[in-house]
Amino acid sequence: MNFPRIGRVLAGFVTFFTVAQVAPLIVAATEQAPPGESAVAGFVGSIVLGAAVVAVLLFAGRGAGGEFHRRDTLCVAGIAWFLASLLGAIPFQWSGLLADPVDAVFESVSGLTTCGATVLGTAGNPAPEATATSLLLWRAMLQWLGGIGIVLIFVALLPSMGSASRNLLMAESVGVSQDGSQPRVLTQARGVVGVYLGLTLACIVALIGIGGLGPFDAVCHAFSALATGGFSTRSTVAAFDSLGAEVVLTVFMFLGGCSFTVMAASVREGWPGIPSMLRTAEFRIYSLFTLLAVGGVTIDLMRGGVAFGPALRMSSFNVVSMLSCCGFATADFHAWPPLSLLVILTCTLVGGCSGSAAGGMKQVRLLVCLKLLAYTVRRFVRPKSVERIRLDGEVMQAATISQVLAMVLFWLLAVLLGAMVIACDQRLGLLGALSASASMLGNCGPAMATVDPAALAAGIPAIGQSVAVVGPNIGPLAGFGDLGSWTKIAMSFEMVLGRLELLPLLVLFLPGFWRR
Amino acid sequence: MNFPRIGRVLAGFVTFFTVAQVAPLIVAATEQAPPGESAVAGFVGSIVLGAAVVAVLLFAGRGAGGEFHRRDTLCVAGIAWFLASLLGAIPFQWSGLLADPVDAVFESVSGLTTCGATVLGTAGNPAPEATATSLLLWRAMLQWLGGIGIVLIFVALLPSMGSASRNLLMAESVGVSQDGSQPRVLTQARGVVGVYLGLTLACIVALIGIGGLGPFDAVCHAFSALATGGFSTRSTVAAFDSLGAEVVLTVFMFLGGCSFTVMAASVREGWPGIPSMLRTAEFRIYSLFTLLAVGGVTIDLMRGGVAFGPALRMSSFNVVSMLSCCGFATADFHAWPPLSLLVILTCTLVGGCSGSAAGGMKQVRLLVCLKLLAYTVRRFVRPKSVERIRLDGEVMQAATISQVLAMVLFWLLAVLLGAMVIACDQRLGLLGALSASASMLGNCGPAMATVDPAALAAGIPAIGQSVAVVGPNIGPLAGFGDLGSWTKIAMSFEMVLGRLELLPLLVLFLPGFWRR
Repeated sequence: MNFPRIGRVLAGFVTFFTVAQVAPLIVAATEQAPPGESAVAGFVGSIVLGAAVVAVLLFAGRGAGGEFHRRDTLCVAGIAWFLASLLGAIPFQWSGLLADPVDAVFESVSGLTTCGATVLGTAGNPAPEATATSLLLWRAMLQWLGGIGIVLIFVALLPSMGSASRNLLMAESVGVSQDGSQPRVLTQARGVVGVYLGLTLACIVALIGIGGLGPFDAVCHAFSALATGGFSTRSTVAAFDSLGAEVVLTVFMFLGGCSFTVMAASVREGWPGIPSMLRTAEFRIYSLFTLLAVGGVTIDLMRGGVAFGPALRMSSFNVVSMLSCCGFATADFHAWPPLSLLVILTCTLVGGCSGSAAGGMKQVRLLVCLKLLAYTVRRFVRPKSVERIRLDGEVMQAATISQVLAMVLFWLLAVLLGAMVIACDQRLGLLGALSASASMLGNCGPAMATVDPAALAAGIPAIGQSVAVVGPNIGPLAGFGDLGSWTKIAMSFEMVLGRLELLPLLVLFLPGFWRR
Repeated sequence: MNFPRIGRVLAGFVTFFTVAQVAPLIVAATEQAPPGESAVAGFVGSIVLGAAVVAVLLFAGRGAGGEFHRRDTLCVAGIAWFLASLLGAIPFQWSGLLADPVDAVFESVSGLTTCGATVLGTAGNPAPEATATSLLLWRAMLQWLGGIGIVLIFVALLPSMGSASRNLLMAESVGVSQDGSQPRVLTQARGVVGVYLGLTLACIVALIGIGGLGPFDAVCHAFSALATGGFSTRSTVAAFDSLGAEVVLTVFMFLGGCSFTVMAASVREGWPGIPSMLRTAEFRIYSLFTLLAVGGVTIDLMRGGVAFGPALRMSSFNVVSMLSCCGFATADFHAWPPLSLLVILTCTLVGGCSGSAAGGMKQVRLLVCLKLLAYTVRRFVRPKSVERIRLDGEVMQAATISQVLAMVLFWLLAVLLGAMVIACDQRLGLLGALSASASMLGNCGPAMATVDPAALAAGIPAIGQSVAVVGPNIGPLAGFGDLGSWTKIAMSFEMVLGRLELLPLLVLFLPGFWRR
């Protein structure tokens, strides 16, 4: 390990992360804080602490030089996520918003990983409506920075650091292909950030123009939608009572789940690039999946007695939200019929496209699995046939396929083991534990609680209507504050694990990784 | 397709299946039928119908000759399962026991696939306690015949049919290796039947001697345990109130989930063979899995307030029952805490060893997945290392590994799609749909219903105590009669699909399979 250089890179990262807090600090200085809270104190404290950490890291990194290897990169990414999680939590706690440090870390990790699970509004914490604007902005910013990778955005926005840039860009799963040379990779990363920025601006404009939201709500929701985060400035997006806003958000959540890498390449090519994006196999299966899921849930809701209009409105918003792993909700969907729940759980597991801000195991992996299954059936019928599995016209090597499958199995195993850990809180039902684990690992946000049978018998709830549940309400219109501290810590770990796609984080816990 | 030879082989099979009904017919003739029912009429009708089918098949198979290919074998196996399912159902309906033909077919398929899901005691059908002895015997026999494969047992017990024997033995997944020459394969199959018979006799003796059961109950439960079926002569095994019987059944259910092929080979080697069986990787992971699952559930039950003794008694019996995919139950375990439910669901998915009577996706596939995951982690840490995945000392080829993974993914996909179909019955919860699908595909039997929160709050139910549920009770101490006809048909299809391990049945529905 090249610890001095690791320290140096991390010092740059923490500087970047600390400077970012100046924006909410300015907002905090101009607003009236709720009684007993001081957002200014929170941000000032956090900035001072950040500066101290930078000083320590610079001291550790004095005389840095030598090679920067892949292992160093993984180390940087792991520590960067760890530091960002803790430093991002400071404003929430030191401002007096969240009393429990575990809650503050949970909220920070949830933002950075674009999970969007919140502790606000539960366990005695204030609801988003009663939270200072500056802290809501900081929540939104955490998501936006995390959306395409906190390390990627840091590297892309700073001057090149030589080979370190390239290696760092590969540690997070978003946005850059693995085979590029160093300058091309940096260009690519900057293209991705450009697309991300452009779409965010477009979303802000559309939310104000079409959705009728105020500028602040529009900024926060655009940050949240493009990053597929899920934090809102209200307890539910349904509170805006704006069909326009829901449609705009649905479109931009869908786009947040598309590959920014492919979009950036399309933009470089100009307009002819857009059809080439629409032709990629992953985009097509993502669109097909969206249509099938929305259609299936709409029909299921109609069978449950909802009229076509509201059924389509509820299903399109909430299903796209869960598939893109954003996590906004306009309906308390754990009270929906079982088929809808299965579809939503499947969305949570699969997620959006690779190279997007979305979580989940990614559509391309589903596609490879389906191709392998079709191939297996054909081989069973005609054992002597010679053919290969192709993706976008290229033959896939056996090693690549088995890597993809290993990743899928890892994902499912992680969901199962995570659910077992969460299930140690015996107040949750099996559905609660399973959906929470899938949601945390997939960075979706909402989970599903056991709905009270009486509420279930009353039929499907209307838009924005909350239903009674048994045990802690971890459902779409509530939060995770009521869970135990250890459960929240385990869930925070799951969020980062899912955001880094398991292995880059897991190997840091292996002794073999640290041995030469 | 060589239809004449297919007809000829099927004629033999149906003869065998029809003659088997003479045993319960004799029992029926000596007992007093409940009012309004006549088991004698049921069996006589079924035997006459079977004879008619044989006549038709013999007519279709006149002048049979020529080669018997792999495709013909798949065709025979598929049709044999279809015919056996229908013919096995006749006694249940024509005796007057089950009024609904769908219920009768469900019960018959459930027996043959050793699923053990029952419609008795629900939807107005009599409980097992009120069912004629002869029909209970027929239920047990269906399981015992299906346990190691209805086709295998038919081929093994009859004189050799040349190459057809070998091909037929490979169509079902139980018991014979794929590479043997024809006489060796037949010897192997007979060895498997010998072990199966020997263990069944041992179980009968132990149930009478240690468990204190009457001879009839002992025979039925031994048939059920070794075949890992799950039909009982009572609504729950707890009704016998015999710890001895529970321990004996636990041991033999565990053995029913061990590979009969390996056991048969061990027996041929004499005593030295037994340690060699204990040394196989699959047996070891099966044992480890059993210990972990029983241990985890015991601790979970103790955290829920049950004392160690009853917790171990309930967890060992029910967990081994679900892991071996037998499906006996002594506790209404859907009221257990969520961790226990997750463990039980995992057991249902994985199942016993390959070459056993158990269902599920089999332990060896789990083992290969875990080995691949460990390999992936090692490769991630040291990308340049050259190593291979080994199983029992032999290097696994990449093609084999990807076949195993494809099978695992297929299984999970089938569980998910099956759950979606079952979920169309909106009275079930997500847990109900998911557990029913996993249970049917894994041939386990019991599913889990949504337990009434009031009952859940009352704590973990005692042995044999039934709890109140919301919607149809498809839990361990109830049955599936209350579901809709289409749901039961879909579930019957899932049972056969799981029993034949998906592909051999699925390809029969592909037009490409029937084309030359």
